[in-house]
Amino acid sequence: MNDWWREPARPLDADARDAALARQGQLTKPAGSLGRLEELAVRLAAMRGNSRPALEHPWVAVFAGDHGVVEEGVAAFPQDVTRQMLLNFVAGGAAVAVMAREVGARLEVVDVGTLAPEPLPGVVWDKSARSTANLARDAAMSPEQLDHALAAGRRAAERALTSGADIFIGGEMGIGNTTVAAALGCALLGLPGSALAGPGTGLDGAGVTRKAAVIDRALALHGFVSSLAQDDATPPFLEGVRGGISTPASPIDTGEIPPTPPLIKGGTEFEHALDALRRVSGFEIAALAGAYIACARAGLPVLVDGFITTAAALAACRLNPGARDWLLFAHRSAEPGHARLLDALGARPLLQLDMRLGEGSGAVAALPLLRLACAVHGGMATFAEAGVSEGGE
Amino acid sequence: MNDWWREPARPLDADARDAALARQGQLTKPAGSLGRLEELAVRLAAMRGNSRPALEHPWVAVFAGDHGVVEEGVAAFPQDVTRQMLLNFVAGGAAVAVMAREVGARLEVVDVGTLAPEPLPGVVWDKSARSTANLARDAAMSPEQLDHALAAGRRAAERALTSGADIFIGGEMGIGNTTVAAALGCALLGLPGSALAGPGTGLDGAGVTRKAAVIDRALALHGFVSSLAQDDATPPFLEGVRGGISTPASPIDTGEIPPTPPLIKGGTEFEHALDALRRVSGFEIAALAGAYIACARAGLPVLVDGFITTAAALAACRLNPGARDWLLFAHRSAEPGHARLLDALGARPLLQLDMRLGEGSGAVAALPLLRLACAVHGGMATFAEAGVSEGGE
Repeated sequence: MNDWWREPARPLDADARDAALARQGQLTKPAGSLGRLEELAVRLAAMRGNSRPALEHPWVAVFAGDHGVVEEGVAAFPQDVTRQMLLNFVAGGAAVAVMAREVGARLEVVDVGTLAPEPLPGVVWDKSARSTANLARDAAMSPEQLDHALAAGRRAAERALTSGADIFIGGEMGIGNTTVAAALGCALLGLPGSALAGPGTGLDGAGVTRKAAVIDRALALHGFVSSLAQDDATPPFLEGVRGGISTPASPIDTGEIPPTPPLIKGGTEFEHALDALRRVSGFEIAALAGAYIACARAGLPVLVDGFITTAAALAACRLNPGARDWLLFAHRSAEPGHARLLDALGARPLLQLDMRLGEGSGAVAALPLLRLACAVHGGMATFAEAGVSEGGE
Repeated sequence: MNDWWREPARPLDADARDAALARQGQLTKPAGSLGRLEELAVRLAAMRGNSRPALEHPWVAVFAGDHGVVEEGVAAFPQDVTRQMLLNFVAGGAAVAVMAREVGARLEVVDVGTLAPEPLPGVVWDKSARSTANLARDAAMSPEQLDHALAAGRRAAERALTSGADIFIGGEMGIGNTTVAAALGCALLGLPGSALAGPGTGLDGAGVTRKAAVIDRALALHGFVSSLAQDDATPPFLEGVRGGISTPASPIDTGEIPPTPPLIKGGTEFEHALDALRRVSGFEIAALAGAYIACARAGLPVLVDGFITTAAALAACRLNPGARDWLLFAHRSAEPGHARLLDALGARPLLQLDMRLGEGSGAVAALPLLRLACAVHGGMATFAEAGVSEGGE
């Protein structure tokens, strides 16, 4: 079971993609006039192996964990809010719970490492520890704990598959986790804390500065030297060490820009990512990375949410580059560092609505667009069927 | 019945807005973290007079007309496609028909001036002429025809209201109507044809240049001199003549930027707009303007679609500045001139998905966001209800 996350992702279905592309050219509209809805339909066709795909059973898994780094004063809310919000998810009062209900998505809440000492009613209990260690003083987790968190994500993806899900949305809850996601992003991209630290749930300017300093302390402690901190000079250990994330075969596959090659600390790209996930991330982030990879291996499309989930997606693609093909990106959040993480993945998200809540809420907001894309693609008449004349100057 | 379009729009409900704002501050999420979804919920509360609004009965009216200017070679599709597409709307095979079905919206198709010589089955027949005149050679319509088209829009809005609609989406169909919408926008904003002419359904570069030249010819013929064509000097008749579009009371009312003041040809602002609508627009555009104003008078929220409907919205706000409060903007289309029209209205649309189909399709695509905004606003637990601690550094 070790290293399961390195097993290859399922290839996209080129025949279904080509059939969907051909169909797009016959529908009663000017070619390309539905813009990204066309691209989504074709991409989902390639993922689902069906030239006329549909998304009838969306699944939302919210992973929750607590973070030792909160003792550094990086969060705007008290730590007990993680536990309180789990109950709010299950009771249906949290934003993502209301939104999932509205779009008819199943919602599962998984405690992968909160401080809660015993299982909460309605919450899946799949954890190896109560909170990570403070990453500014120690590795966030042990190798065994990382294995557990990655596998907890895989188990969540498997439950989604068993239940017949046709698209997977990962959400997260964990007071302090924008700090942790920023630290992970910095470690993976060779950036200083200031590049990705933002207000999170509501820090002021001084709070953001403190957060960036805590991240820099953690990066230095764990040996993730920032390349930018050194006047843009490539640090010695980075020279000549560049990897690549798999890029899709054609623009219509993703509609997304090509990713920049990653900087890696040494060893292989996946060893670097594994080290970063263990030292400077959190249980819910590792679980998300595990879930994304498991989805990609099984051929279940993923709709990535916001800042924290994108950091997890970046880690997932470093562990398993083929996972990138299975990720769709829902929105660009108001958290300033999100754009940089999206760029690193070559991702062009669908929405930009100044959302910054997490929980998976931005992804659920984008889900109706994917469904509309499938509906028009599958339901429109062709020029021949409708007796409509085709264009062309 | 003359000049009905000048009667004041219904005022927004400030009490409902304030109650919605207060509720937003109590929901279990960091303040502002749902971004524009919060703003939408508060604005819809002010429109619906209900601090917890819902949108259960969306109504889509597609107005169709034909355009004499097509004889100038400005369209990529043959003119008979207007009629063919009406049948495709009614049969359910057109994009907006499929999308309306997917979101549970009622769809009505109104022939306000196509070339069709007799009523098409399932299409509302409310027209005074078959096609406008060629606006590059003559006024597009007579004063009586303009009155009829505005009133046809009002009647469509009244049918929506009678049927219990709680939001109105206007769509359009008419081969050649991006040319006409661009001409109207240029006339209202004092711009040359090149500022708003774009590829429409698929013109190439030479086609766009020809389209801009046709528009310039029409603007000169009808006395809508471009201010930009004269090295940015204000034409004599524009000096000192500036009007304003009503701006909302607070940013949360719209989330949109303040509009630039309009340039007007002479006389009053509404006389200028009426003259432009008559000389350089089309029946479906005039009907849309009439419908938007009728919605604003009755207090029915409007979700504006793309380039052509935004030109109609600009005319509506010139005829009746209070109408602006009732307009929400769905998306920014790929038609290059759309951004300029949106700017003139101070509008910040929700989506930007490279769509450029018209029909109302972009507005239907944005509708789920409005509903999700209402759902989270109305359905989330408050901090007190959920026993969640509030934030604050």
